[in-house]
Amino acid sequence: MSQHSQYVAKAQTLVSQMTLEEKARLLSGNGSWTTHQVERLGIPSIFMADGPHGLRKALGPNTADSVPATCFPTASALASSWNTELIQQVGAALAREAQANDVQLLLGPGINMKRSPLGGRNFEYFSEDPLLAGQLSAAYIQGVQGEGVGTSLKHFAVNNQEFERMVSDSILDERTMREIYLPAFEISITQAQPWSVMCAYNKVNGVYASENPFLLEDILRKEWGFEGFVVSDWGAVHDRAKGVQAGLNLEMPGSGEVNRKKIIEAVNAGELPEKRLDEVVVSLLAVVFKAVEHRRTGFRADLDQHHALARQVAGESIILLKNEDQLLPLEVGGKKKIALIGAFAKEPRFQGAGSSQVNPARLSNAHDELVALLGGSERIGYASGYDLEGVTSAQLLDEARQQAKNADVAIVFAGLPDSHESEGFDRATLDMPEGHNQLIEAVSQVQPNTVVVLMNGSAITMPWVAKVKAILEGWLTGQAGGGAIADILTGKVNPSAKLQETFPVRTEDAPSALEFPGLNQRAYYGEGVFIGYRYYDKKNLAPLFPFGFGLSYTTFAYSGLTLGAASIRDTDSLTVQFKVKNTGKVAGKEAVQLYVREDKPVVSRPEKELKAFTKVALQPGEEKTVSFTLKARDFSYFDLGRRQWTVQPGRFDILVGGSSRELPLRQSVSVEAPVAVPVLTRESLVKEFRDHPKGKEFYPRLAGIIMGGAAAGTDPKRTPQEERARKKAEMSTLVFVHDMPAYKLINFSEGKFTEQMLNDILAQVQ
Amino acid sequence: MSQHSQYVAKAQTLVSQMTLEEKARLLSGNGSWTTHQVERLGIPSIFMADGPHGLRKALGPNTADSVPATCFPTASALASSWNTELIQQVGAALAREAQANDVQLLLGPGINMKRSPLGGRNFEYFSEDPLLAGQLSAAYIQGVQGEGVGTSLKHFAVNNQEFERMVSDSILDERTMREIYLPAFEISITQAQPWSVMCAYNKVNGVYASENPFLLEDILRKEWGFEGFVVSDWGAVHDRAKGVQAGLNLEMPGSGEVNRKKIIEAVNAGELPEKRLDEVVVSLLAVVFKAVEHRRTGFRADLDQHHALARQVAGESIILLKNEDQLLPLEVGGKKKIALIGAFAKEPRFQGAGSSQVNPARLSNAHDELVALLGGSERIGYASGYDLEGVTSAQLLDEARQQAKNADVAIVFAGLPDSHESEGFDRATLDMPEGHNQLIEAVSQVQPNTVVVLMNGSAITMPWVAKVKAILEGWLTGQAGGGAIADILTGKVNPSAKLQETFPVRTEDAPSALEFPGLNQRAYYGEGVFIGYRYYDKKNLAPLFPFGFGLSYTTFAYSGLTLGAASIRDTDSLTVQFKVKNTGKVAGKEAVQLYVREDKPVVSRPEKELKAFTKVALQPGEEKTVSFTLKARDFSYFDLGRRQWTVQPGRFDILVGGSSRELPLRQSVSVEAPVAVPVLTRESLVKEFRDHPKGKEFYPRLAGIIMGGAAAGTDPKRTPQEERARKKAEMSTLVFVHDMPAYKLINFSEGKFTEQMLNDILAQVQ
Repeated sequence: MSQHSQYVAKAQTLVSQMTLEEKARLLSGNGSWTTHQVERLGIPSIFMADGPHGLRKALGPNTADSVPATCFPTASALASSWNTELIQQVGAALAREAQANDVQLLLGPGINMKRSPLGGRNFEYFSEDPLLAGQLSAAYIQGVQGEGVGTSLKHFAVNNQEFERMVSDSILDERTMREIYLPAFEISITQAQPWSVMCAYNKVNGVYASENPFLLEDILRKEWGFEGFVVSDWGAVHDRAKGVQAGLNLEMPGSGEVNRKKIIEAVNAGELPEKRLDEVVVSLLAVVFKAVEHRRTGFRADLDQHHALARQVAGESIILLKNEDQLLPLEVGGKKKIALIGAFAKEPRFQGAGSSQVNPARLSNAHDELVALLGGSERIGYASGYDLEGVTSAQLLDEARQQAKNADVAIVFAGLPDSHESEGFDRATLDMPEGHNQLIEAVSQVQPNTVVVLMNGSAITMPWVAKVKAILEGWLTGQAGGGAIADILTGKVNPSAKLQETFPVRTEDAPSALEFPGLNQRAYYGEGVFIGYRYYDKKNLAPLFPFGFGLSYTTFAYSGLTLGAASIRDTDSLTVQFKVKNTGKVAGKEAVQLYVREDKPVVSRPEKELKAFTKVALQPGEEKTVSFTLKARDFSYFDLGRRQWTVQPGRFDILVGGSSRELPLRQSVSVEAPVAVPVLTRESLVKEFRDHPKGKEFYPRLAGIIMGGAAAGTDPKRTPQEERARKKAEMSTLVFVHDMPAYKLINFSEGKFTEQMLNDILAQVQ
Repeated sequence: MSQHSQYVAKAQTLVSQMTLEEKARLLSGNGSWTTHQVERLGIPSIFMADGPHGLRKALGPNTADSVPATCFPTASALASSWNTELIQQVGAALAREAQANDVQLLLGPGINMKRSPLGGRNFEYFSEDPLLAGQLSAAYIQGVQGEGVGTSLKHFAVNNQEFERMVSDSILDERTMREIYLPAFEISITQAQPWSVMCAYNKVNGVYASENPFLLEDILRKEWGFEGFVVSDWGAVHDRAKGVQAGLNLEMPGSGEVNRKKIIEAVNAGELPEKRLDEVVVSLLAVVFKAVEHRRTGFRADLDQHHALARQVAGESIILLKNEDQLLPLEVGGKKKIALIGAFAKEPRFQGAGSSQVNPARLSNAHDELVALLGGSERIGYASGYDLEGVTSAQLLDEARQQAKNADVAIVFAGLPDSHESEGFDRATLDMPEGHNQLIEAVSQVQPNTVVVLMNGSAITMPWVAKVKAILEGWLTGQAGGGAIADILTGKVNPSAKLQETFPVRTEDAPSALEFPGLNQRAYYGEGVFIGYRYYDKKNLAPLFPFGFGLSYTTFAYSGLTLGAASIRDTDSLTVQFKVKNTGKVAGKEAVQLYVREDKPVVSRPEKELKAFTKVALQPGEEKTVSFTLKARDFSYFDLGRRQWTVQPGRFDILVGGSSRELPLRQSVSVEAPVAVPVLTRESLVKEFRDHPKGKEFYPRLAGIIMGGAAAGTDPKRTPQEERARKKAEMSTLVFVHDMPAYKLINFSEGKFTEQMLNDILAQVQ
């Protein structure tokens, strides 16, 4: 008997002793953050707190008033580390702070796909790629839950815009859902079993996520084996009784008597079976018991150690996007004068707004950290460049130019102000505020050695990209980001982060740019599976910086790609090995990436898809062998006709390298798989009979119903021109017949082919 | 009493005397092309024949065996003329040939939108723009029906791919339908009242077009006032009884007893009211009586005159896309040697395949016509260059190079072979066959004066575009296309055609390129209203040749744009006047275009949309004033929330010129319009209360339910950093509240706000 089933057994025993009112009461929170207790039965309550990148245990109604906690980098920064172990450590640290504050469940991680780079909440999501997001999320969950604190994986599902998210309907086909919007959840749940899942505000294909049996029951519990409870996003409940029926365990925040009464009424009216209610209470209670058992009363977290960890993680999250003439790292003991320009140098933007906003226990800024690292302020000048809304002025620009001119290197801090990026609204443009772009242009005009350090939670455009020598994507790297930026700029840390999302050249290059967010309460996911790099690849469009891209102060070489077999069956797994070597002069880490490409897909598939990655640490000259194992799913697409993951037999390319657009190693494998034989029905097309092992026998008869008269054969009296015209006509008639559903042939047959004859044929082809 | 109502009255009288069996019999064809007669009641039958660009009256079961008829240019060519008068003349000629062959109804025109340039049937559709397609279609219908022959406007509706068209479902929002896929039908019906409309094979949002009450009844008859009958595309009937209920009058081809029985059963079972059956029979019979009354027994058509008209129309359909160094026109009396290269010069591709395939009464080819016009074959060389599938060889290329080298000018004929373009399947690529591209490359390498003449029904790519001096888009210009090409090449006719569809640089640049056609029986119209130039404009993507573009042997200058008012109400019309002048040395015609652009739309709108056009003939030096009138609809978008055409008050730009990307005249008009006050409901968002004239009174109370606690006010004890954090938290909470549906506030209120209180507020804001 596994541990969880013990909690389930205990919960079942108690539920059998509960009144209907008590059960209904348990399914809605007690206020904003806790579950109800039932004293009579000794059922305790648990406390939940926001916290994807730092604990936010509210102290009062104003959500800025929360306990001081370590603010780690937000998800888009964390994910840029491509480092599962490090993210697991962050999870563990978050959990320790939760334990110290008597919090049993952290409301995170957030793993929705970045359908558009304009998504308002992208800063707190991991990636545009489901595999990367899923594996990082699983590591995060393991980290948190390893310390006895629960997670709440969110927002399930297809919640990819902020605009009117409580009423918006995400409309997409099941293939797109299965290949893009669900796998990160699937990986997280099957690999790390989070204690809870948070359902999204929006509708999915017309049904609210909070009352969606397809998502909450069929997929989450039956297919993936989820054991925990589902909690509503705060305010996501629409019809509470439907939600219980669908498997939504807990409503948050509590609605007092309002929805409790509705549950009781539904049970009394026979609309909601009490057995279903019991199941939903049991899943919730099992986690409550587990959580309470793991509580560590009196635990104290080491916030200094966590600050150090935050700095380490931030250092591994900052991406070196450009480094012409090896301008970076800056010499530590040198005499060169350095101008720090931009208010963010002293007043950093380090986290987003909304439910994830942490009250940071410490706060560093790049200016002071650089002064400390570079040894004294006499080398360092400063100009603010813009105000906190990103507006600059002639005077501010003049000051900045003056500082830049008098220095040997100018470092401009720029990015997105608070008002540009928050939970609750989407961005209108990928452009930074004009003032930031103007500042960079102004500085680069007077100082050839210009470095740009960016602070933003999601993709931006860089019209000045060719005019500066170095660019650091500094993301929103939390309370220790200032130190980490200094570490990278000075070479104390060698950058090793890579983009978890594509940066397009222009806003209008982005997928779903034609109409994002979806207005009028509907978002049509017309780009299907083609989001992120899948889109730029398919459209053959050069991004500003591609997915998976990031530089280092050293260099890496790939070689020796070896596949375990040249040909496999889809039931086999395939071992992939290759070598990666540090060919530079300093130690470094490389995020190695493996993509799979189907050679001749039968459906429109991405040019390639990420199927494995890992991060390798290498001393100068050191070489390591990396090994991955691929399975059927890595070659599959979701077949909408059969509603199944399907491997189309054929050739697949295995591509390996350090960026989605730089994959020096390539080899092919042939994958054999059974071709599914479709079930023929009266709706099946004539060509489907032609292609069917049993149906093909009847093809001539079916096609002949229409072609019989049309196929006139060769006639020597025809001119060549007439013969061509005849062939052309025959070709188009044949196409017409092939695409016709079998039942329609009855109408065309003038009585010669009947429903009965079709039924006879169908009986013979089963 | 209008004439049509007389036919209706007659039909009503007869229907009241018919048996159920007779009525049901009438609603399905008698074989492939005729309706049933009812001898007992003197009800005659009518004959229908394919014929968008030429009569195809089948003589036998092989559809290539049809009566000889004039083959006019196909729709994509016709539309390139931008000439409504000429298209009306074509319609009249088609009708005269129908009369001569005792055909009462022509199955055309086809006006579906070119959603993707890969659409297999684009060659027989007019345009990617609904206004252009609609106005040309109305002219065509008026031409045909003016001669007493009916038309069948097809395919209604949203039939934009060939792949599995009998089972495919077109999934799109109503705004996209109303703004893009319906207006060409709307214009045709309201301006020209076709005698019939042909419903499409496909489903629209889950319901077959052949049984779709929203399309066939609500929109077609109730909104647009359609008076004729609806006929199924051949084989489009799915559920016949549902079709009758929805308003599908006639099933074609006849299904014998099969569907007749189903109608009778449905009536007997009470599932189909006999009254509805009567209505559907009446609409059909009224047209039958009208058609028979207009029959001209013994009429003979003048096929020589029609061939001459076909040549004239083809001359006005061929587009001069490029003419460097004014290489064209060729000198007629000169001595220059001319190499004609490419089999299409002698064996032209001049029409598409499928139901529109005509048995041409005459056939010209460019080779012979050029020999005739240029005076003798001694100046003219020839090499075939490729076979009929477009495959070339080293030997064929050598021959071509040899001919090109020995001449002063090389004219390469290229395009798409029959097998690339047909009803029934979509194109896989916009690229021409490799052999054609290779031939052009080979010739252009040895001959600087290379002209390319293209024969294709839809957009292609031109990787060699920079390497040749002149390009003629020759389309599929029918039986007289050879003569017309010679007319243009020699300057006997000055080219005046312009693109009715955008030519993209690459296949992957096209809208819906990610997944076209829609597979798995579903096509998601995710690009929404952004097809054709609307897409390239929105994505800021340079096309190979833009919509509306085409050169002339003369030049035109635009000036003097004058608006009737600087500001109008949406109930007013706006007069737009400007001048266009022939500034060159030869007479010519210019297709002038007016686009409207909304300055600050509230929804994602196209950068500009075509709202008026006309074709102006000008002698050298001549100047004419053009006048257009714009109305509310020209400024409107379809508001999905209110399900109404809506003018958003504000500034609109009026853009005038000779191509969608060259619009030298621009002026603004301010349009005033009432802003619709939405009806507030319990689902309305808090921000909708805020923005509502009566609702705003209750906004503070509603928002306060959540914000009451959160708004902490200013506290002098906070540090600036704390103050910023507080503001940030308050901002995101406010966004959260604003996007919340009012009914959810009840859940958040801890009992302080009830359903009853919300109802009281709602009662006060109505």
